[in-house]
Parts: sequence; structure tokens; C-alpha cells
Amino acid sequence: MTTEYDAVDHRVTADDTTVHSTWNNELEPVCTIEPGDVVRFECRDATNGQLDPDSVAADVAELDIDPVHPLTGPVAIDGADPGDVLEIELLELEHRGWGYTLVLPGEIGHGLLADSFPEPAVHVWELDDDVCHFVNGIEVPLNPFPGIVGVAPAAAGTYDTFPPRSVGGNIDIKHLTAGSKLFLPVAVEDALCSVGDGHAAQGDGEVCGTGIEAPMSVTCRLDVRSDRRIEQPQFETDGPFTPTGRDEPTFGTTGIDETLRGATENAVRGMIDHLHEERELTREQAYILCSAAVDLKINEVVNAPNWVVSAYLPESIFPEERRR
Amino acid sequence: MTTEYDAVDHRVTADDTTVHSTWNNELEPVCTIEPGDVVRFECRDATNGQLDPDSVAADVAELDIDPVHPLTGPVAIDGADPGDVLEIELLELEHRGWGYTLVLPGEIGHGLLADSFPEPAVHVWELDDDVCHFVNGIEVPLNPFPGIVGVAPAAAGTYDTFPPRSVGGNIDIKHLTAGSKLFLPVAVEDALCSVGDGHAAQGDGEVCGTGIEAPMSVTCRLDVRSDRRIEQPQFETDGPFTPTGRDEPTFGTTGIDETLRGATENAVRGMIDHLHEERELTREQAYILCSAAVDLKINEVVNAPNWVVSAYLPESIFPEERRR
Repeated sequence: MTTEYDAVDHRVTADDTTVHSTWNNELEPVCTIEPGDVVRFECRDATNGQLDPDSVAADVAELDIDPVHPLTGPVAIDGADPGDVLEIELLELEHRGWGYTLVLPGEIGHGLLADSFPEPAVHVWELDDDVCHFVNGIEVPLNPFPGIVGVAPAAAGTYDTFPPRSVGGNIDIKHLTAGSKLFLPVAVEDALCSVGDGHAAQGDGEVCGTGIEAPMSVTCRLDVRSDRRIEQPQFETDGPFTPTGRDEPTFGTTGIDETLRGATENAVRGMIDHLHEERELTREQAYILCSAAVDLKINEVVNAPNWVVSAYLPESIFPEERRR
Repeated sequence: MTTEYDAVDHRVTADDTTVHSTWNNELEPVCTIEPGDVVRFECRDATNGQLDPDSVAADVAELDIDPVHPLTGPVAIDGADPGDVLEIELLELEHRGWGYTLVLPGEIGHGLLADSFPEPAVHVWELDDDVCHFVNGIEVPLNPFPGIVGVAPAAAGTYDTFPPRSVGGNIDIKHLTAGSKLFLPVAVEDALCSVGDGHAAQGDGEVCGTGIEAPMSVTCRLDVRSDRRIEQPQFETDGPFTPTGRDEPTFGTTGIDETLRGATENAVRGMIDHLHEERELTREQAYILCSAAVDLKINEVVNAPNWVVSAYLPESIFPEERRR
């Protein structure tokens, strides 16, 4: 948490002149950099400071949705042209010791199983150098990444930060940890890259609608590749593909349905039942843990008319005496 | 390949009295076992002997769909009642030295991108003790599992083997390797378990419609759990979650779309483009390799209206000089 990457060319703080909560290709760049420069983005938490380490469920119910997803930027990369590829090499991610996972109710509820979880809930995680602390001794390994990395859209106008798009944005790819590279298709001159929505860890799917949301600094090298053309994001990563970084005992619940969405819902419902009935968690805690640490894999998408998605729960997040 | 699990209680050969290509709860059991017994199922390849190690694309075009998915069984488990859980502990899987991956055309075409691949194609894989051999020195680690494990459906009648259902069947969960346990909800008296569709390896998704299909024997312990109730399959596994069993360099292509299906198609199209343009494979070879070795993860399914699915290509399957 304390060692800053030592070759930062540009520091972008998070203040009223650098934070924006919508995408728009007419936003004034906060700075212009040369390809290959290293930028340190200070990023606020996803609620833009509406929550703190003492927040409780009642605070979640009062959240204002408009300031959500404060992004830091945009940074202009000199010489990036539409059709080029912006290469973002993630170098260092530093949290501030805490984060939260929310179950959001009502109009701003956007979890996979929003209809089944109408009440707000929150878990505030204490983060240390290695793990994120949950209840009952459960520890989710710390694997920070930016939930949102994007470049400005080609089309004029203002765009919501919630949906990811071909130019990136809210892609929530948990494997974009330090050491990874993300490639985005540049849509406007100078690319205009913004970063935010730091996550201390997340399961594939982010099923309750939030990862382990945490204020964070994101240090990355931004470079331009004129030799490639891509339609949607690509990346290089070493994982982690399991919490321990190696094969480990894992419990799976399988969802089978005529849509991938339905199969996903079935798999997650099965996992919540399991966590509630056999692992001593409330349903809200189970939903939150799924979002923070349970992965979703598409097992098959070709055996019409039914597809298979499974949810994968690693045993290593439990204290040894509670593992199966 | 040669060491048979040494405590087999029942051997079920694959012959006209034990092989069936549809599900039906009135099928006569081939044997009745006690809970906890070990059964060795001999399983034919998915085409039921229509292909052999010398088969070429023209043979694929001539395939008869009716005999596809010859299953071995059913085995009756004494005392299994509807509502119980059948526990299938996978002990040993033995292939016969070869397998194949098909791109199926026309009426029997069922790949994720069937419209883009109207011509039949096949790769016959030489299998050894550790790897499955592809072109250009590419080696996919051997991780055999049964594509189909199921129990008889509750409803009377004859059912196609292609779609998986809540009682299992064609679930194609690549992590059901030796050492894993699969749990299925029992729907009829004595459960009536059948097994088939051996795969020497497969990527999550099985995107071209076939894994590395291989004749195989499947040895497993069948037990009954009356203390649990499940709606759809569950399992325990140690993976492998990557080809090497640990974190490793991986290239990803991301698909973003308003449906999980569309996002999956975009991710796989991006990977096929990559394998064709940067890895010296034909498009058919690329599609086949995706089905055999590329994994699909749901990155987020909550940022409406766009979901994110990525395809993950491990570098370790390439010869060292061809890795990025």
C-alpha cells in the first residue's frame, strides 16, 4: 500500500476539475501525455464519497445515483487516432484500507437477482495488504483492478457510465490486475482515457451489482499501437484465475436454462442456497460473497435449447476448520 | 491409459444391449448396484463409431445424427428415491489414443457461430498420456471428463440427448475430471444413471459444438445422499482451472452486447480473428481450438443494458517460440 511506482510521469488527482460521472468526447482533457508515459490516476469510490467505513444499510437506501462512477480524466494521448489501439499496462493499484459491497434496492437496484433482494444491504470490508475481511473468518484475497477503464465514444453526446461499450468503460474484468495489459479501440483523436471504479476483488459476474468497491489509485502506462485493429477490448493477464493462483478445491452449482441469463441466475441461486444452508451465511451475505468471490463460467453454449453456466466457490476463502 | 482402477465392482460394456441414444425412464437397467459401488462404463465416441482416426471433412458431411450420443447404461442404484441426490465420484478416465473435434454443417450444425461456418471440418487428435496434439506444435493438456452424465427424467417419454436438463445429461462441465464429484437430483426410483460423450479436453463453452470427442472408459463410484436436496447439478472439483494448473499468461478477447449470447459470440469471433491473423491458424482450426482449449468467463452481468463475456487463450498450449 505504501510503495509508489517510482517512474510516474503524470499524477491526476481526483477533484472537481478532473472527476466526471458521464462519458462525453467533448470533455476537456486534464492533461496531454506522450505515448509510453506513466500516469497515476487517483480514483474515488464508486459512490463518489457518499459512503464511508461506518456506513450501514440505511445509508445505502439514501444513495443518490447521479454522482455514481466518478471517473478520473480524461487524459489525452498525443498522436492516438481513431482506429488505433490504446494499450493500458496496469502497473500498481493502491487502496486506502477499506471497501464495501452493496445490495442496492429499488430504482438503482441492478443486481442479477434484484427481484429477490428488495432491501438494501452493505458489507464494509477491512482491506490489508493481502486479503479483504468478510464475516465468519472468511478472507477474500486482495486482487485490485479498475472496474472502469475506457476511452471517449465516437458519437457526440453524454453517455451513462453504467453500461460498458465497445470502447470499454464499466467492463469489470477482474483479471485486469497489476501486470496486465488492456487494449481498447481508439474512437476519437487523442483517445481521451478515463479510469475509475476501483475494486479490491470481485467474482466473475459481479452478481449483486458491486464488487469490493474501494477508493484507489491506479498507475498505468498508456501507449498507442497503430499496428493493430480491434473491434472490442482485448487483454493480456496472468490471472489470478483462482484465489490461490493454482488449482484448488472448489464447490460448483450449475444452472441450466434456455437462456444464458436464466442459467446464470439458476447457478447463483443455487450458490446462495448453498452458502445460506450449509455455510452459515444470511442470504444477503451469501449474495455479497458471490459478487466478491464466486466465479461464473459458461460450461456449454451449444447444446440447444439449454445452456449451462456454473458458479464456482473456492474453499480457500474459508477458515480451514470450515472447509469441506 | 493402462492402469485400471483396481476396485471395480461392475463393468458395463458398450454393446447393443447397453447403449442407448435417447433418455427414457422406462429403459431396462443393465445392472442394479448397491450405493457406494464402483462402476466402469465403457463409452463409445459421440458419433457411435461413424468416425475413426482416418476420418476427413467429407466423412463429417455424411454423418447420421440419430445414433449420436450413445450412452452406456442405465445403471440402477438400489434404494435411490426421487428427491435424493446421486453422488458420482469420478475415479478414472481412460481414452483409446485418439479423438476428434468437428465443425458440423447444415441441419446438424449446432456451434455457437454455425452461420459463419457452413462447411464441415474435422481435426483428429493424437492423444498421449499428457497432451492432445493439434497443428503447429500446439498441445492441449489432456484433462478427460464425461460430457454426459445423467439420471432418468421424471416425465414419461423419450428425450433427445442433446440438451442438458435439471437431471444432468449433456452438461459438458470440463472440470468433472478424475477426483471430482458430481451431484444430480434423482427423479425416478433407482435413479437410472447413464454416462457417455467422453472428452479428452474442452474449453468452457464447447463453442464449435464438439470437445475433443473420444471413446473412453469412465470409472466412478455411485452413491446416494438422502440428506441433501438440490434442484440442478452441483459438483466438487480441483479443476484444472488453467492448462498448467496455476496462473499463467493468457490472452483475452472481450465481447460486449445486450445479451450474454451476443457477448459470447463477440468474444469468440474476436478470438478466432486473433488466432487466424496472429497465430497462423485457418479460421476452421481457430474455431476448433477455441472449442478445445479457450475458456469463457462472464465478467459482468449487472451493468445494464450491456453484459461482458471474455474468451481466454492460455499461452502455454503454444510451443515456446510461438508464445507472446
